[in-house]
Amino acid sequence: MEILIPSTFTAEERNLLIRTHKIGLIARAAAIFGIKKIWIYYDEDPLFNSIWLGELIEDVLKYAVLPPHLKKYFPIKERMRYVGVVPPLQIPSHPSKDENPEFITGRVIRSSKGKSFIDIGKTSLIVNKNLKKGEFVDLKVDWNKKIANVIERDQIPFYWGYDVFFYKQKLNVLVKELKNKGYFLIGTSKYGEPLDKVEEKLKIGLKNDKTAVIFGSAYRGLFDILDDESRRYVDLIINTVKMQKTKTIRTEESVFITLALLNNLI
Amino acid sequence: MEILIPSTFTAEERNLLIRTHKIGLIARAAAIFGIKKIWIYYDEDPLFNSIWLGELIEDVLKYAVLPPHLKKYFPIKERMRYVGVVPPLQIPSHPSKDENPEFITGRVIRSSKGKSFIDIGKTSLIVNKNLKKGEFVDLKVDWNKKIANVIERDQIPFYWGYDVFFYKQKLNVLVKELKNKGYFLIGTSKYGEPLDKVEEKLKIGLKNDKTAVIFGSAYRGLFDILDDESRRYVDLIINTVKMQKTKTIRTEESVFITLALLNNLI
Repeated sequence: MEILIPSTFTAEERNLLIRTHKIGLIARAAAIFGIKKIWIYYDEDPLFNSIWLGELIEDVLKYAVLPPHLKKYFPIKERMRYVGVVPPLQIPSHPSKDENPEFITGRVIRSSKGKSFIDIGKTSLIVNKNLKKGEFVDLKVDWNKKIANVIERDQIPFYWGYDVFFYKQKLNVLVKELKNKGYFLIGTSKYGEPLDKVEEKLKIGLKNDKTAVIFGSAYRGLFDILDDESRRYVDLIINTVKMQKTKTIRTEESVFITLALLNNLI
Repeated sequence: MEILIPSTFTAEERNLLIRTHKIGLIARAAAIFGIKKIWIYYDEDPLFNSIWLGELIEDVLKYAVLPPHLKKYFPIKERMRYVGVVPPLQIPSHPSKDENPEFITGRVIRSSKGKSFIDIGKTSLIVNKNLKKGEFVDLKVDWNKKIANVIERDQIPFYWGYDVFFYKQKLNVLVKELKNKGYFLIGTSKYGEPLDKVEEKLKIGLKNDKTAVIFGSAYRGLFDILDDESRRYVDLIINTVKMQKTKTIRTEESVFITLALLNNLI
């Protein structure tokens, strides 16, 4: 499953520390429910620099998903100064120092004559192959024989984290593109259909290879963001909170609520 | 529905701003799903002052649920200096300044000779009755006739907010007390029963007048916090995340996830 969030999702907060913490909540929700990809879409706003806001989300999400032993390679920008408040994701690609995991991601530190040295944090491993210096590689390790081999990510039988992509166009465009690629698209809105009414449709849709859940922002719900034509590309727009007591639901709140409910239908 | 959260739930964060923001998430979740009461239970911890931590939660939650026009009456303590980061709850008891709501909570500013003046923020209303100065009262207002009458909270047909109670004893004691009062008690744990296996039992339990959902802390799950005897008082312990990808789920995350799922069963 993939999710789409608006570039403006932290706009209502002025404080960078809180903005960073809110982005961290999205990272955690994505990790808990095994989200494959997080799309940030460009949500135009007269009051905010939506590109800057989207890049902040992109940076923090990418940093969060990097294994702890590789974070030192991430070029820290000024706007990431509070990235330490993002809680650890605690996913299998983020081993603790005392573990010797069968699978681990490392970074090629040097390579010559058919041998590459891979930094995996507490030590480095040798792969008998020329690899590009600076590249991140996924390894399968035989700790007894001290042999590591490069492995394709989709061969790792664990959740390895999400990809992040900042799509610098409006949701109208992205929705059409995803629909053309065969995605089953689920929107969330308090004006959407009650979950129990569309449960069967959802269950069938969730069997699709590619599904994506679209979230609006606190300022603009999906019915404001999407034009009529684009809305037709969305297979279902669901309301996930029966008898909602607050006027609006924030993006990070809706992400937890919606993924909890969809995960339960899979 | 009521919820029980541990006094230590913000312990893992060192930063008071982030702690306050995390407590704000609980306030928001409680508001979204119309939670009646939030119990904070004493969770002993060798590393933290659990009483202080519990009091911080109590203060921030109580401040958050107070209508905006009455927050000025809340005695702000030093530890509440970041309380401004708590997002607005946007519930019917929190009207905006341009609304003239039928129901509103105010504070008695003076009272004599059968007349009381009630501060409701933008103006004050008169109630033809002696009331205790400083008291908070719920009013039904006829704006045309400029008449206000005191009304019992349970006669207000909207969600008015949650109560907060810091129970300064261990969960073992609280669970027994609630069970004796006839509560249907739901625990949450990754070692609990999968939701779909106990859905029918849950639906029946949720029809009970009094239900409470118990959350563990990030350090100690419910199976660590409750002794064997007390665990018997809990009607159901549920696991709300199928195929959870992270090692643990934090209290604020579990609150959103669990309430989303239970709200959908009501």
